[in-house]
Amino acid sequence: MPYQLYYWDGLQGRGEFVRLALEYAGAAYEDVARTEPGMKDMLKILASKTTPHLPFAPPFLKDGDLIIPHVANILFYLGPKLGLAPTDEALRFVANGLQLTITDMVAEVHDTHHPIATTLYYEDQKPEAKARAADFITNRIPKFCSYFERVLTRNGGKHIIGDALTYVDLSLFQLTEGLRYAFPRATTHFAQDYPALTALRAAIKRRKPIADYLKSPRRLPFNESGIFRHYPELDQDP
Amino acid sequence: MPYQLYYWDGLQGRGEFVRLALEYAGAAYEDVARTEPGMKDMLKILASKTTPHLPFAPPFLKDGDLIIPHVANILFYLGPKLGLAPTDEALRFVANGLQLTITDMVAEVHDTHHPIATTLYYEDQKPEAKARAADFITNRIPKFCSYFERVLTRNGGKHIIGDALTYVDLSLFQLTEGLRYAFPRATTHFAQDYPALTALRAAIKRRKPIADYLKSPRRLPFNESGIFRHYPELDQDP
Repeated sequence: MPYQLYYWDGLQGRGEFVRLALEYAGAAYEDVARTEPGMKDMLKILASKTTPHLPFAPPFLKDGDLIIPHVANILFYLGPKLGLAPTDEALRFVANGLQLTITDMVAEVHDTHHPIATTLYYEDQKPEAKARAADFITNRIPKFCSYFERVLTRNGGKHIIGDALTYVDLSLFQLTEGLRYAFPRATTHFAQDYPALTALRAAIKRRKPIADYLKSPRRLPFNESGIFRHYPELDQDP
Repeated sequence: MPYQLYYWDGLQGRGEFVRLALEYAGAAYEDVARTEPGMKDMLKILASKTTPHLPFAPPFLKDGDLIIPHVANILFYLGPKLGLAPTDEALRFVANGLQLTITDMVAEVHDTHHPIATTLYYEDQKPEAKARAADFITNRIPKFCSYFERVLTRNGGKHIIGDALTYVDLSLFQLTEGLRYAFPRATTHFAQDYPALTALRAAIKRRKPIADYLKSPRRLPFNESGIFRHYPELDQDP
């Protein structure tokens, strides 16, 4: 039975981190909400009065009866099954720690356009978004990215953990793609500042399953419904 | 060798979720930064040029050579060793999903007093904090807490997952304690609105290891350096 990924249609969003792992491994999966009547099914699970493993929000993965929510958790679960986790079991917790740091950065990216309330439109919180984005560009991008650069370099530069590619590397690819989409000015010197991250991004882009996926209709373009949004007024020089 | 927990001294903060699990299980552990020269040792690890498992930020747990960062990850690792995780391995991922939802809510609590930048003081972002806290009280507390209430009730009301107490229950105790400390007005009707969460909180408070811990000097009081801060001007009726 194929894995069933549940996530909002029309955007890459948090679901994309899971898609990249499934696509890289060539795993059989359904992107449920992108088929009819998948969106209805997803909402039914979220409102269910009987599902014992009720998720708080998409994305979640269904593997048989098991429902697993949260990107890092889904990847922790799938990693060994897809051959995308360290073989050493203790190292899997180190990988999960890295993934959770990515999770934190992704949440901060989201808050650059929604610093006050997710229930409000971006347009209703623009001055606050500008202030938060400025801090994100000045302080948070350097703090997070120099951390990932340091760990990646220390591990030899080809993979961030262990001696082979893991889902964490695929997520770092998505993270750098997203940052460059949302903040082209702020990331102008990205290649000089973070050469290892930049090389990893290029290497992953060339891998056959990823290259194929990026050309496929399954890879939606970045857009302003997702996490990484390009609002020129929020971007600035680093 | 005892577990070594690394977290800032002087506040409960995110470290408290780990402490509660260690204390409940009666595990041998050192709260490193609360002893001399622990703070120095913690900063040395964070700045290390050789540590292969470099953490991004505290809290992190050291178990021998292994360094594990992020609360949910530490608890996922410790849970089975402390007898505080579901025995069914698949259910451990469901537990981790619940814990990550708690993590998300805790991050949102933090952002009620720091919506613009962690590098600024609360005093420098007070109007934005007021707006974010108002949304948190109106929309987010009900959304998160009614979710936890639903899952808890569906599981029989005594534990949120499986048939015995897990670290997730202990974290829910801390979460409700913190919410009531930070937002006494907003949580006035908490017991009526969330009877199962309220009963769980009382039950955990009575358990001997927790009751002992709460009376000990190891339990620091909530204060305005932590995640849960009581700023009366951010609190309001629900």
